[in-house]
Amino acid sequence: MSESCNSCSAAGTCTTDSCSSEPKVSEAQKASHVSKVIAIMSGKGGVGKSSVTSMLAVSLMRQGYKVGVLDADITGPSIPKIFGVTGRAGVSKTGILPSKSRDGIKLMSLNLMIETEDDPVILRGPLITQIVNQFWTDVIWGELDYLLIDLPPGTGDVPISVFQSFPLDGVVMVTSPQALANMVVRKAVKMVRNYEPPIYGLIENMAYLQCPDCTKKIEVFGKPKGEEDALRNSIPFLGELPLDPALAALSDAGKVEDYQSEAFDQIAKRLAEQIKIHDNKKLA
Amino acid sequence: MSESCNSCSAAGTCTTDSCSSEPKVSEAQKASHVSKVIAIMSGKGGVGKSSVTSMLAVSLMRQGYKVGVLDADITGPSIPKIFGVTGRAGVSKTGILPSKSRDGIKLMSLNLMIETEDDPVILRGPLITQIVNQFWTDVIWGELDYLLIDLPPGTGDVPISVFQSFPLDGVVMVTSPQALANMVVRKAVKMVRNYEPPIYGLIENMAYLQCPDCTKKIEVFGKPKGEEDALRNSIPFLGELPLDPALAALSDAGKVEDYQSEAFDQIAKRLAEQIKIHDNKKLA
Repeated sequence: MSESCNSCSAAGTCTTDSCSSEPKVSEAQKASHVSKVIAIMSGKGGVGKSSVTSMLAVSLMRQGYKVGVLDADITGPSIPKIFGVTGRAGVSKTGILPSKSRDGIKLMSLNLMIETEDDPVILRGPLITQIVNQFWTDVIWGELDYLLIDLPPGTGDVPISVFQSFPLDGVVMVTSPQALANMVVRKAVKMVRNYEPPIYGLIENMAYLQCPDCTKKIEVFGKPKGEEDALRNSIPFLGELPLDPALAALSDAGKVEDYQSEAFDQIAKRLAEQIKIHDNKKLA
Repeated sequence: MSESCNSCSAAGTCTTDSCSSEPKVSEAQKASHVSKVIAIMSGKGGVGKSSVTSMLAVSLMRQGYKVGVLDADITGPSIPKIFGVTGRAGVSKTGILPSKSRDGIKLMSLNLMIETEDDPVILRGPLITQIVNQFWTDVIWGELDYLLIDLPPGTGDVPISVFQSFPLDGVVMVTSPQALANMVVRKAVKMVRNYEPPIYGLIENMAYLQCPDCTKKIEVFGKPKGEEDALRNSIPFLGELPLDPALAALSDAGKVEDYQSEAFDQIAKRLAEQIKIHDNKKLA
């Protein structure tokens, strides 16, 4: 067994002695023209990655861009709920039609394809990765400036497949101040460096909570250390976000598009800058 | 392809037409005598499942039980760090020796077997499940009253494998007040019901945060709804826990065994009661 077998989708079940299957980048559905494909990643769950992905999409849309969100968290999909989208995705002769949020963000998620949103998805890795791949090859995304991919936490099957077979332009890391979370972010950073795409930067979520009564800034998960962590991993720091009960409430109510946040708008601007910097590097 | 193929470890890569492999319960390492094997599960990451597992272990130990924790979160292992255990696990002629926490809780985790704790584990599902299985078949757990299995979030490969091949006595669900998290908990409850073991109950973590200055109870993730959720899913409610910066700090510092919490002790007592109720049902 060679080194590369470890991350092969047939690992542990393959019985051939020799193997010629180099992972290939999949082609998008014919009618999809996506300028930038960006994966949003966290080593650990519960750092608010899906909320951050959703609000990044909203902020980019508010800046005038055409945005889509691909929910690659097949066993714990939460993007449709955050945007309050409950209808099933459409199907045409040539592919799957993404759903649209109230303000026009295109969405694709397994929860848009199953009958009951609380039905469990009891599937093994290889089938899950096939579904995620279909969200790229069979979904008619149309014209998009940005497609944000909400990866499941960790460095397992889906992140590996997305890195191997999606034409990624870059990656955004989301963390929280828990040292625990940061340790697994370092794992994630190391994983990304095995592949091509650059890391556009790190966002520190849940950095603090402001008491609604006495306005004290409470550092719920310990001292924020995102900036330090970004520096240590040699990646740009895109900014910190508070743990905001208002965002939690709007996400629960499917009204994330009503949330206003200067911090998010700043982060989305810094992200757009980083993308430009990397584009210029490519041209140079 | 039959229905059961979906959760087979060879799904998507298997090429045989007929299949005779019914999943079998694995045998423990010969010198292991474990009275109760309990899986700690959450549909969603970041609800504090690993902290809750660790503190449940501590509370059970304080009640005089012999306890072990099996960290089944292979790609995001956090148990050793929470207990401040950094040494490598030992190996004897007959198996793998678990590490011990300061106060004597036995621990096994992939992070006790790799050189650098922030090395990423880039492995596909089938290999990951093989490792988790080895933590049962090859680890010399010795005499234990309780072995707690810290499952990774979701309903993917590892939870499926643990349900299929571990002799589970029961399951504890951990949730947080986010409706998002609760939706995925319902998915997890439905998944467990496809298998044998009973659900001992639901713990609601991060129910509120007390402002350290003005003592206001802040409902960070919305109104707690664990009791209602447990009722709706017909499972016992074991209790609610606050989002406590002190627990986060002690977990980060590897000193979870210094944490004192009346709430955890109550929950551990209620869990022990539920286990007795199910034992009596079996005898009746």
